[in-house]
Amino acid sequence: MNFPGYGAPAAGGYPGGFPGQQQDPLYGYFTAVAGQDGQISAEELQTCLTQANFSGGYRPFNIETCRLMISMLDRDMSCSMGFNEFKELWAVLSGWKQHFMSIDRDMSGTVDPQEMSQAVSSMGYRLSPQAMNCIIKRYSSNGKISFDDYVACCVKLRSLTDVFRKRDQAQQGVATFQYDDFIQCTMSI
Amino acid sequence: MNFPGYGAPAAGGYPGGFPGQQQDPLYGYFTAVAGQDGQISAEELQTCLTQANFSGGYRPFNIETCRLMISMLDRDMSCSMGFNEFKELWAVLSGWKQHFMSIDRDMSGTVDPQEMSQAVSSMGYRLSPQAMNCIIKRYSSNGKISFDDYVACCVKLRSLTDVFRKRDQAQQGVATFQYDDFIQCTMSI
Repeated sequence: MNFPGYGAPAAGGYPGGFPGQQQDPLYGYFTAVAGQDGQISAEELQTCLTQANFSGGYRPFNIETCRLMISMLDRDMSCSMGFNEFKELWAVLSGWKQHFMSIDRDMSGTVDPQEMSQAVSSMGYRLSPQAMNCIIKRYSSNGKISFDDYVACCVKLRSLTDVFRKRDQAQQGVATFQYDDFIQCTMSI
Repeated sequence: MNFPGYGAPAAGGYPGGFPGQQQDPLYGYFTAVAGQDGQISAEELQTCLTQANFSGGYRPFNIETCRLMISMLDRDMSCSMGFNEFKELWAVLSGWKQHFMSIDRDMSGTVDPQEMSQAVSSMGYRLSPQAMNCIIKRYSSNGKISFDDYVACCVKLRSLTDVFRKRDQAQQGVATFQYDDFIQCTMSI
């Protein structure tokens, strides 16, 4: 299963990208919060995205969404993020934000379940109506999906699909898990 | 796998329990937020637990933790909770709170990774050091686990274990998932 709709631009495709790390505005946002180890935690990522005004007119990200973002790219299971992963995250998030803004035509800050369902399908996920319904209910408040919840849903869906695909060696849509492995990979998301 | 450490008291075992729904103090908290349908959403649950001062000296629950609580007992996939489930939740939460307070001896509001690990083990979960480490990292902030995160971790671990056990028919610690089913049950938690 491919994810043609992720819309992740090539590295450097974010607004105002420059060659060279020092001039990179993203590097400024990152170093303003990163500790001496050059890594940021979920709390620091939340501060960073808020200071960079990533959400614009939308509500800033919940700390839980920031933890999901860290886990999505956390290859070394450190629960923190270096600058390269931060750039990768920014690109993916920018694609999702663009998509969300295109369906939130009245700029109300929320989208309808049907628009959300179309967005998920357009990302290449083939899900049953039951699974789609279940996801949408989980990420709705009063029948609407906010930008924060939309991103949380996209991050989680991508991470869980990655986990599953790695265990579905025949690529037949079936995977077997040991209990310990199942808990480890689903609890960390 | 049993969960001897859940500490869920028998129904009515919460403080101040009375026979008869009308006199039940929990019923007062519940009806103060429930709509005409007699169900509460995650947002209403958050209001309800805050008004009932469930967390006491601890920080109130994050909306994400309230969604997890709803999903843990959501047998009809409505993403809402009736009074009977609310009573069941209150009992389970009270057990967890008691446990948390017993390990948070200095009432700092947080516990150490090692104490968290012992708490999870004492609930009957048999996990590898890797899985335990991964869980603890995910639910820590600055190396400490808050009450809110402790509850989120307990709820998620219980829900995911339930999901797994239902598919592990031979009870051998191995389960096979179809992709759609995997996404449906892990995304709804």
